[in-house]
Amino acid sequence: MNLNPTLVTAGVARFADSLAQQGIAHTAVEWQPPPDGSVDALSTVLADPRRAGANAEAAARMLAAGARLVDVRPAREVVGLEPGRFCHAGPPVTWERASGPLRGALTGAVLLEGLASDPPGAERLLAGGRVEWVPCHRLGGVGPMAGVVSPSMWVWVLHDEVHDRTSWCTLNEGLGAVLRYGAYAPEVIDRLRWMGAVLGPALQAAVRRHGPVDVKALVGQMLTMGDEGHNRNRAGTLMLLRDLLPDLVESGLPSADVARVARFIGGNDHFFLNLVMPCAKLQAAAASGIAGSTVVTAMARNGTDFGIQVAGTGDAWFTGPAAVPDGLFLGGYGPDDANPDIGDSAITETAGLGGFAMAGAPAIVRFVGGTVSDALRTTREMYEITVAENPAYPLPVLDFRGAPTGIDAALVLRTGIRPQINTGIAGRVAGTGQVGAGLVNPPLECFVAAVAALADAVPQ
Amino acid sequence: MNLNPTLVTAGVARFADSLAQQGIAHTAVEWQPPPDGSVDALSTVLADPRRAGANAEAAARMLAAGARLVDVRPAREVVGLEPGRFCHAGPPVTWERASGPLRGALTGAVLLEGLASDPPGAERLLAGGRVEWVPCHRLGGVGPMAGVVSPSMWVWVLHDEVHDRTSWCTLNEGLGAVLRYGAYAPEVIDRLRWMGAVLGPALQAAVRRHGPVDVKALVGQMLTMGDEGHNRNRAGTLMLLRDLLPDLVESGLPSADVARVARFIGGNDHFFLNLVMPCAKLQAAAASGIAGSTVVTAMARNGTDFGIQVAGTGDAWFTGPAAVPDGLFLGGYGPDDANPDIGDSAITETAGLGGFAMAGAPAIVRFVGGTVSDALRTTREMYEITVAENPAYPLPVLDFRGAPTGIDAALVLRTGIRPQINTGIAGRVAGTGQVGAGLVNPPLECFVAAVAALADAVPQ
Repeated sequence: MNLNPTLVTAGVARFADSLAQQGIAHTAVEWQPPPDGSVDALSTVLADPRRAGANAEAAARMLAAGARLVDVRPAREVVGLEPGRFCHAGPPVTWERASGPLRGALTGAVLLEGLASDPPGAERLLAGGRVEWVPCHRLGGVGPMAGVVSPSMWVWVLHDEVHDRTSWCTLNEGLGAVLRYGAYAPEVIDRLRWMGAVLGPALQAAVRRHGPVDVKALVGQMLTMGDEGHNRNRAGTLMLLRDLLPDLVESGLPSADVARVARFIGGNDHFFLNLVMPCAKLQAAAASGIAGSTVVTAMARNGTDFGIQVAGTGDAWFTGPAAVPDGLFLGGYGPDDANPDIGDSAITETAGLGGFAMAGAPAIVRFVGGTVSDALRTTREMYEITVAENPAYPLPVLDFRGAPTGIDAALVLRTGIRPQINTGIAGRVAGTGQVGAGLVNPPLECFVAAVAALADAVPQ
Repeated sequence: MNLNPTLVTAGVARFADSLAQQGIAHTAVEWQPPPDGSVDALSTVLADPRRAGANAEAAARMLAAGARLVDVRPAREVVGLEPGRFCHAGPPVTWERASGPLRGALTGAVLLEGLASDPPGAERLLAGGRVEWVPCHRLGGVGPMAGVVSPSMWVWVLHDEVHDRTSWCTLNEGLGAVLRYGAYAPEVIDRLRWMGAVLGPALQAAVRRHGPVDVKALVGQMLTMGDEGHNRNRAGTLMLLRDLLPDLVESGLPSADVARVARFIGGNDHFFLNLVMPCAKLQAAAASGIAGSTVVTAMARNGTDFGIQVAGTGDAWFTGPAAVPDGLFLGGYGPDDANPDIGDSAITETAGLGGFAMAGAPAIVRFVGGTVSDALRTTREMYEITVAENPAYPLPVLDFRGAPTGIDAALVLRTGIRPQINTGIAGRVAGTGQVGAGLVNPPLECFVAAVAALADAVPQ
């Protein structure tokens, strides 16, 4: 017989404080009620008899989705982008409300496409409404950070053979002063020109000679090699290089080009991120449009707004203000230089990777901040707000438990636990580039709005 | 005031049993006295006033040692092997006492060198005393499993610039039916011929064009990528490929050879083991010959005997019977097919890697058996018998604590905690090859003998 009862207190501090004053051991559990005004909608959604089945279907589809790299082609061909049309990260946003890094990246893309000859000219074009930009997500793709895609940029093409769906993402430029962080200096544009002229065609030749590459399987292996697929992609990058390089060597390209391509990829530990993202997009997209499902199918930021989509309401965005990440800064930069959260890369967390898989990548804390025990705790906590564990993404340190997958917007509201995202940090001034990396959460407003819309959609 | 005393019992079970009968919570700690006959020697060694300083010096040298890959050359040039002379793993052993895999590997090496035309002829030559074999360690190198090196085999050449010492190791053949596991079928010999004709010269060209590769730094990075450097070398292999391939591409070799070399390396996750081993050898060798030091400078097995060397007694071997590893078996093989422990690869554990670093490589349990919590516990336990933590080998999951480095033979005897080794398992019948992988410990006899010799060397 246990003569020592275990005491647990929840919510308001009064219970815990009172026990503490009496010297009684207890465990205090944090809890707070759903945000004001959300209780009725949340109750309606939680009581929706379709929810359990719809979420099970969403989880099954997310776990079943495949992701094979099948080609590398210019965005104009894959995405159907015409001159004067661009893609960007996050939900839609006007020039007036666009953040510095998004403005900077659009400016650089206008220069790259030769639509203007200098940055002021590009900005006039962008502010004047004579070019347009649409979310990557609307066209089935994803873009890291500013996520700007122009017609001449080459993109990875991934295919989910289970649901016969295609996704795409640009090629990764590296870190520092790069377009996706809002930089547009001449060396940024020159690098993009080389990527279009040499890197893209070389990768196309290698992929076509090699045949499809199972990106989902590589992601599963990364997670046993200290990567979490958002801000650590070292092992993934190395495995891609291993898989494609022999065919690149045999492609008949000049050896100087082959060597430069190999050095460019090998010199950028983040290169594989742009394959993890469309892999995650294919998983998340597989769950989209399931009536009654509260599973999140996209989390994306444009540097101003954070937006989410949920399975039960298709392509509708539910937004709130993007927060400034808390993290580690490069060189002389500090928190005052940081732009609010930006990029489609939170699609990795949407699919159980990134911040959700940090237990498998403890070394990430040296890049995004926090402690190793935070990383382990975070993954364990994410199981509280997700509907599945992905056996294709095992986390060895948690006894090979599958990564927590499929965020339930209703559980986020009910528990107050917000998804944990790790992210690069862009300089807030257009043209700056990357200033750091850190941790950030979506604003609860997104989930309040999503649950309200889901409640409205519950049949009377 | 704490009214609940914490009870700990040590050693014999009577104390713990008595408390258990009274229903009193307690922690029972295992402990047993040193083996019979070793107490006096252990007391002498522990009381040796030189020991603390000597072990501190040994630790400092092990941690300071560098390991740069500087060349790839035939063993006849690097090791000075002449025709009819071979190296092998572990302490010296005669043909009569040699295990099946060592006999098989020597047979294959005789065939490779063209000294006999078929296996029976090779065995007659070996049994007849007309060729000789010496430990790799005696010539400053290391060899995995049977560790057989013949004059025409190419070897990695590593240099420790701090102590101006060189070490070497063969090129890894892959898994399964390979010479180092005792196989000598025609395809084994053909593969070795290709390695000598194409792989070795190609790697030489790449390394000479690239310049020295900092192997110690790559080992440090591996440990943040799920490798422990003995039976997981996936990230290490990929980083080596990344570093050497651009120069290999530019070397002017035919692209078909470059592609085949890239596929050979990329297809063998263990390829980098043969660089970790001489890196570890350089660390361990740096501590050799320090009077009064009880630090282990080699652990090596020839398939019959397990031998260790300690810093205070130089190149003397202290041996005991090699145990059969406990592990996971390939295909239809089982424990009855396993040869006792074999190979110089326990030099990795001698330097804080392999079994000592398994906390950083939890996925290894799928290859060598055991559980993830065993892997974490094992690394923590190895701190009990080591004299240093290597900051160059950080283990992120332990909050970046350095790998436990420098086994103290006296602490092994005093605690009864034996070094934990993980290892491949060779088939006991010559010609078989690999049958599995598992976990094994050195026999305590090695440490008893080493401490006795150290005691004899203590000045009166």
